[in-house]
Amino acid sequence: MTDQNISRPVVRLRPNRARTVRFGFPWVYADELVLDRRSKSLEPGTIATLEDAERSPIGTVTVNSDSRIPARLMDRDPEAVIDAAWLERKIRFAHAHRERLYDAPFYRLIHAEADGLPGVIIDRFGDAAVIQPNAAWAEAMYAELETALITVTGVSTVVKNATGRARKLDGLDEESAVTTGTLDAAIPVQMNGATYMADLLGGQKTGLFYDQRANHAFAAGLAKGGAVLDVFSHVGGFALAALANGAASALAVDGSAPALALAEDGAKAMGASDRFTTRRGDAFDTMAALASEGAKFDLVICDPPAFAPNKQTVDKGLRAYERVARMGAALVAPGGYLVLCSCSHAADLAKFRDSSLRGVSRGGRVAQLIATGFAGPDHPTHAMLAETAYLKALFLRLE
Amino acid sequence: MTDQNISRPVVRLRPNRARTVRFGFPWVYADELVLDRRSKSLEPGTIATLEDAERSPIGTVTVNSDSRIPARLMDRDPEAVIDAAWLERKIRFAHAHRERLYDAPFYRLIHAEADGLPGVIIDRFGDAAVIQPNAAWAEAMYAELETALITVTGVSTVVKNATGRARKLDGLDEESAVTTGTLDAAIPVQMNGATYMADLLGGQKTGLFYDQRANHAFAAGLAKGGAVLDVFSHVGGFALAALANGAASALAVDGSAPALALAEDGAKAMGASDRFTTRRGDAFDTMAALASEGAKFDLVICDPPAFAPNKQTVDKGLRAYERVARMGAALVAPGGYLVLCSCSHAADLAKFRDSSLRGVSRGGRVAQLIATGFAGPDHPTHAMLAETAYLKALFLRLE
Repeated sequence: MTDQNISRPVVRLRPNRARTVRFGFPWVYADELVLDRRSKSLEPGTIATLEDAERSPIGTVTVNSDSRIPARLMDRDPEAVIDAAWLERKIRFAHAHRERLYDAPFYRLIHAEADGLPGVIIDRFGDAAVIQPNAAWAEAMYAELETALITVTGVSTVVKNATGRARKLDGLDEESAVTTGTLDAAIPVQMNGATYMADLLGGQKTGLFYDQRANHAFAAGLAKGGAVLDVFSHVGGFALAALANGAASALAVDGSAPALALAEDGAKAMGASDRFTTRRGDAFDTMAALASEGAKFDLVICDPPAFAPNKQTVDKGLRAYERVARMGAALVAPGGYLVLCSCSHAADLAKFRDSSLRGVSRGGRVAQLIATGFAGPDHPTHAMLAETAYLKALFLRLE
Repeated sequence: MTDQNISRPVVRLRPNRARTVRFGFPWVYADELVLDRRSKSLEPGTIATLEDAERSPIGTVTVNSDSRIPARLMDRDPEAVIDAAWLERKIRFAHAHRERLYDAPFYRLIHAEADGLPGVIIDRFGDAAVIQPNAAWAEAMYAELETALITVTGVSTVVKNATGRARKLDGLDEESAVTTGTLDAAIPVQMNGATYMADLLGGQKTGLFYDQRANHAFAAGLAKGGAVLDVFSHVGGFALAALANGAASALAVDGSAPALALAEDGAKAMGASDRFTTRRGDAFDTMAALASEGAKFDLVICDPPAFAPNKQTVDKGLRAYERVARMGAALVAPGGYLVLCSCSHAADLAKFRDSSLRGVSRGGRVAQLIATGFAGPDHPTHAMLAETAYLKALFLRLE
């Protein structure tokens, strides 16, 4: 790929559309780019030089003419060569930040655009890593990406996870595989004093959600000595952190038996099985059943899947968040805490907060908002895409 | 005050205005209340029963007919007696939350409406506490408030701080005093491993800002081994936390010589004087001087006073935040961090973030937003006033 910048194609902005890119905005929308027969014929993922309407080069982009965002900025340098060395520099820069943040090598290493690699997610689990190449350019350069990752981090096992929704849009397959080393079993991950079991091949997304780490820690600090209910628990994110911080008991509710089995394995590894129980079932049904049993908890966490993943589902999603809040609040003891999370891109903080607080209020409870959390600092956002922050966590105390 | 609910006056809502109060909204605006000669003749701070237009009692309020908010909800129970026992219950409920949050008794104990006591701020400094009775009702009941505070917390020294701006609006004096016990010197406060000197009588507001505690801690985690610049440092909030967490050096800039002297005392108490320097002067001038000296830091924090305290000053304030961001960014080494704070009520998160990121971008720097922080959990917000969160902190990493 070394003669990339000599031979490579050019795509061009429409008149007066260069300003946002010059200010660092990393995306070019379809109505901003000249999409002629030549640019439409480029293979998805082609690396190209972006020019303004006056033919001045202003950056290096990856092109996918079928996409809503047909050009994504790779480098502000129009002569940048996107090769193994370039990838290594990006990963090294990202790595320095994570090594500063955490004592142990368990974190999200690359968070797509924000870390300068559009569409690429890399999660690190000690000596193993999972790459999600959710863009055609990254699929094409997977081998270089993997090499750069190993050079920077020294991991011995690399998993390619191809389940990302964005891959379908880019016309990519869905075949996940171990591409370097071997992987026999779930990997134990130490986080906030708890032990989580991460199944890097069978799990959701990349096997474990690092984005909630700081929110787990803050919730765990509220749990000491108390009874905890973790609804939509997945592999026990909030519940196990609470147990590690001295919660008297934790009940995890989830619809997935494999996820709850991993949570139980984690509790066992922590020596906390005697304080940990699980209930498999629909979250709403289980909350209703607990309410009719008269159950009360000192800390209730509801961390559901995205109810409002896109604009079409916002209203329905917000009603679901309101319902979660109302049902969750009913299970909180006086003076106890309720943690409500949303990972919906389309429901912004204000909307999610309004729906949640309405639910609490309609449930007859009076609340203080004591904290608002987002995804952790290993999940940065691009400065120009700051409104895309998807994860929100509201920490409430109820009278 | 025990026959309060027999003899006490009544104020009445206009038709169809009871809904928000019934849902827990704690304020009644001037256009929602019947303000006749009788209600206007009530002494500011009078405790009254709030009725809806049909004369059904719906809550207990404090009345100040001259205010933009002539009635503030004290209790959803219209028969609540606002006496020493009532105050003690409120303080006890708030106290349980802070004792759960922190290992040592240094925190904001009462944060006004959010803790059920409109206009009242109480900060705790170990065996001492500072009360800000920024409302007429609290001034009238200061003795009961102080007694309840001592009963719950056991503090031996109580300071009344009467410098709050809201007191003027309520026609109250500005005389601060030690009302219980004695106070000889600044109090050392342990926070995030650092030692801060809190001057409870001479300092700004209540002598130390607890609201930034979690942001101090997060910034300190980024500072290890690095050179830190803390602009608008006050008593060294960010700088001393960074030193406690292993920063190689910290330079604190502030316009106030007494504040910097307290910061130096703190550094001395920590045994970190050899790594700590101060510069007294205008923040903008000092940043410009450092830039012309070619100075670079691994972590730069700018935590200015409120540039946009009200609607009239928003545009000017946002320009000032942009300027702070541009000048601060110029002093950050490649791969280093920039922390930008705002305590402006009138500039919401989106506006402050846009201005800050514009400043960074216009300074020619590319940024990742790695975290967004707010005031700590001992500064709750009332569920119905969630948009009033004033403190915002943006954590950026610069290429």
